[in-house]
Amino acid sequence: MASKKDKLKIIPLGGLGEIGKNMTAIEYEDEILIIDCGLSFPEEEMLGVDIVIPDITYLLKNKDKVKGIVITHGHEDHIGALPYVLKKINVPVYGSRLTVGLIENKLKGFKMKNAHVERVKPRQKIQLGAFKVEFISTSHSIPDAFALSVETPAGIVFHTGDFRIDYTPIDDQIIDLDKIAEIGRKGVLVMLADSTNAERPGTTRSEKSVGDTFDEIFSSRKSRIIIATFASHVHRIQQIVNSCVKYNRKVVFAGRSMLTVGAVAQDLGVLNIPEGITITEKEMDDYPDEEVVVVVTGSQGEPMAALPRMASDEHRTLDVRSGDTVVFSSTPIPGNEKLVGKVMNLLYDRGAEVIYDKLYDVHTSGHACQEELKLMHRLVKPQYFIPVHGEVRHLRQHGLLAEELGMPKENIFVGETGDIMEFSKESAKVIGKITSGQVLVDGLGVGDVGNIVLRDRKHLAEDGLMIVVVTIKRENRKVMAGPDIISRGFVYVRESESLMSEAKDVVSKALVSCEKQNTKEWSVIKGAIRDQLKGFLYEKTKRRPMILPIIMEV
Amino acid sequence: MASKKDKLKIIPLGGLGEIGKNMTAIEYEDEILIIDCGLSFPEEEMLGVDIVIPDITYLLKNKDKVKGIVITHGHEDHIGALPYVLKKINVPVYGSRLTVGLIENKLKGFKMKNAHVERVKPRQKIQLGAFKVEFISTSHSIPDAFALSVETPAGIVFHTGDFRIDYTPIDDQIIDLDKIAEIGRKGVLVMLADSTNAERPGTTRSEKSVGDTFDEIFSSRKSRIIIATFASHVHRIQQIVNSCVKYNRKVVFAGRSMLTVGAVAQDLGVLNIPEGITITEKEMDDYPDEEVVVVVTGSQGEPMAALPRMASDEHRTLDVRSGDTVVFSSTPIPGNEKLVGKVMNLLYDRGAEVIYDKLYDVHTSGHACQEELKLMHRLVKPQYFIPVHGEVRHLRQHGLLAEELGMPKENIFVGETGDIMEFSKESAKVIGKITSGQVLVDGLGVGDVGNIVLRDRKHLAEDGLMIVVVTIKRENRKVMAGPDIISRGFVYVRESESLMSEAKDVVSKALVSCEKQNTKEWSVIKGAIRDQLKGFLYEKTKRRPMILPIIMEV
Repeated sequence: MASKKDKLKIIPLGGLGEIGKNMTAIEYEDEILIIDCGLSFPEEEMLGVDIVIPDITYLLKNKDKVKGIVITHGHEDHIGALPYVLKKINVPVYGSRLTVGLIENKLKGFKMKNAHVERVKPRQKIQLGAFKVEFISTSHSIPDAFALSVETPAGIVFHTGDFRIDYTPIDDQIIDLDKIAEIGRKGVLVMLADSTNAERPGTTRSEKSVGDTFDEIFSSRKSRIIIATFASHVHRIQQIVNSCVKYNRKVVFAGRSMLTVGAVAQDLGVLNIPEGITITEKEMDDYPDEEVVVVVTGSQGEPMAALPRMASDEHRTLDVRSGDTVVFSSTPIPGNEKLVGKVMNLLYDRGAEVIYDKLYDVHTSGHACQEELKLMHRLVKPQYFIPVHGEVRHLRQHGLLAEELGMPKENIFVGETGDIMEFSKESAKVIGKITSGQVLVDGLGVGDVGNIVLRDRKHLAEDGLMIVVVTIKRENRKVMAGPDIISRGFVYVRESESLMSEAKDVVSKALVSCEKQNTKEWSVIKGAIRDQLKGFLYEKTKRRPMILPIIMEV
Repeated sequence: MASKKDKLKIIPLGGLGEIGKNMTAIEYEDEILIIDCGLSFPEEEMLGVDIVIPDITYLLKNKDKVKGIVITHGHEDHIGALPYVLKKINVPVYGSRLTVGLIENKLKGFKMKNAHVERVKPRQKIQLGAFKVEFISTSHSIPDAFALSVETPAGIVFHTGDFRIDYTPIDDQIIDLDKIAEIGRKGVLVMLADSTNAERPGTTRSEKSVGDTFDEIFSSRKSRIIIATFASHVHRIQQIVNSCVKYNRKVVFAGRSMLTVGAVAQDLGVLNIPEGITITEKEMDDYPDEEVVVVVTGSQGEPMAALPRMASDEHRTLDVRSGDTVVFSSTPIPGNEKLVGKVMNLLYDRGAEVIYDKLYDVHTSGHACQEELKLMHRLVKPQYFIPVHGEVRHLRQHGLLAEELGMPKENIFVGETGDIMEFSKESAKVIGKITSGQVLVDGLGVGDVGNIVLRDRKHLAEDGLMIVVVTIKRENRKVMAGPDIISRGFVYVRESESLMSEAKDVVSKALVSCEKQNTKEWSVIKGAIRDQLKGFLYEKTKRRPMILPIIMEV
């Protein structure tokens, strides 16, 4: 039997069965290390919710055990929950140059000055309690991304982070295959690996190939070129800048996150823009169209971002004109296809040429496809494997891929958020479940929007509401005023006056019948109004608005 | 100059700049022919709306001119608005065997008995006023699809309908290339052609190849096989039945539309199911898993359809069990990706094997890709061209394709719904615009849900509402009861009692200050309550619920 000293636990707090809010706890004896601390964006049915963060009940219960948080890279689904989590558990945070730059920038926005955020270098090792963490360079759609090797007395845990394999990256930071091989040679107990593209055969194209497409577009267009991409995709932006230099164009940056991330990346030397290349929106008018490139946010069709606002002519300073070339250097994230399509159509309406990934190679994914995953498995050669960073179907496909490579099925753990997985060299199993899940953030409220509130929002959204107010004399229960009826989101009232006056009659009748039966309970009277009105409205309109009867006593 | 006799007008009433509600009017002198009469499904922001139909104001104004409606095929985006339109303009409707079967079935649901719906055969010609319409077989994802050749004194209009080219279709009804070539030889004035897949290079695979994949799956699985597909894709269903016969499996059909469309298709001989193959849901238990196939609706993830309900264990009689093989014989329509993904994940959670188009060739499109479109253009050789059936970007791509084939740019009309396009052999131009657009149908209401109602629904959906009621004495404006506050969809009240009582104080203060200023106007008092409360709530929560102040007078 393995003793307690030979075992470690891995507990995913997010990121399994979803793409978003990545967070994993590694527990050895009475110490916990956290990897990543991300947010996710609300599902369609989470009406009005701004962001979603992991439920950290378990960590709060074990607050004193937590030694620190190590971050793989600076995307929101890996750092976005930090302000919320650090408010409750103030432990040190470690990440790469750009990751730390983005975290510090984010914490500033939350006015959090007490946080301890520390920059580490590739191949640097830090000791956090029982955990010796080594940071290993990888390639991803943001610079300075790390895989992590976590040495514990029970064995090594290897976490790929979000990664792909790019033999010709834009910076010199090539994925550290040498180090990964070395760790694999030492023997890895458990590997956690990115599953986002586990369904996709083959390999991703090099980021460099996108630069070639930019060159092709820049050299063949005499028009203004507007490029939408992810603000955090600094290498993509670097390539745009490089093409600008090559083809003698000036570049304008627009969109809040484009400007802030750009500033952080430039300060850190991650993004290199030669002097005299950047111009302001105003200066743009001094240059002919063929000498201008505009780099904007909104490649996912987000209604408040720069490009969508330009497309619908709602941007304060920028527009899209007939003859412009607009490039979507991105791919729609599942769920955003319609939004993106809508923006494209608006751009076409304005007479722009629209270039996107179906027509040109203007994007490549930041996540490893099947052949790249296989290389990672072959190098790391873990004893156990947990596919992470994916919906259930991605995790399953990644599990199948590991099986195909010869890994025994019982060593593959397609788990769920909240699983307590226990590993030792002798055995591994899921030994239980912690409280976990999602916490909805709406405005300043963290967790105060739950199922009841969402159910009501959904009901209101679908059929609107009808409020019935009546004032009743306390002593004799006589109606003193009303019933008045107010509706919102139900029908256009001016066209439905007769419906409204009939509805009033229905309520009045319900009140009379309650009076006759000498009903005294407000709740019963309200129930009668609601039921009568509901039946009447459904018959007349086949709709079911929320009905809110309000009785005032005087 | 061309005289009036040499000109005809084409007016798209829907289907341009959108995929849905296809409807086109052809006008020659004082006669109008309508092609198709479809619905579209609501956009995400059309909260609570059931379906969308074309605005037919123009046709209602010219009611007496309308000679008839010819239908290309039986999909909802081509026939779905018929019950609404025929109620207002009762003209004869013509379509193929299956098309008419589906229309009759639909009209029955609306209890419309007066409609004149007539079946026509391939190559049949009918005369409707000045229009001689010939019906020409094509291939699509529903059997019995037609292209239309409309001969008018001003020239021939050729409408492809929704089409693809399949040299080995499931029935013998091969696209009538011969007839299309003949019409092309006669000289076509204007062609309207399907643009859905104008972005996709190459050709579609034959429907037959999907049957081969079914054979492969059926022969290699010992499990129950559940297949989700479109109910109207009768050839797909025919192939499932064929594979059942081959591999000795029984088939169960489930889902309302699957049963109704199946019944119509079987009655008409379009779907051929040998006796003894179909079993009921109950009989299924008498057979071992390896002898059962279940064909269901819900391939688009529609929450109320059979498969999604089975996946979330909410189906009355059917379930998904560990070991089942579930096939999505479909592709998500843009906008449905997330819904479909969610159902897949639930199926994986239940331990099913999930097969979909990324993994197997279980689907092929019903719309022509670029090489097929080129063939159509080469055969029809129209003088003018209107790309139809597509969002703006599809129409543009189709226009570019025509240009590449050598058509002069000025002969290509990438138009919008409502354009009045006038054509003659001498010239063609857009000469104006009619009232057109969308009419929203919500329950029994046709057109009573407009922008105000939708704006309110959106507001309610995002931040919920807060109702403030106060009863005031008419004579002296003293508060008799209240203020009471009721909220829905805003915060979970039990956790926010203090917020609610503070909100009451804010309202009371606003009332006192109105009293002090001797304000008499209800609207001013309401405005004061709204503004004060709005500011307070935004400061406290960063949310903006709809605030409804109600004042009752006694």
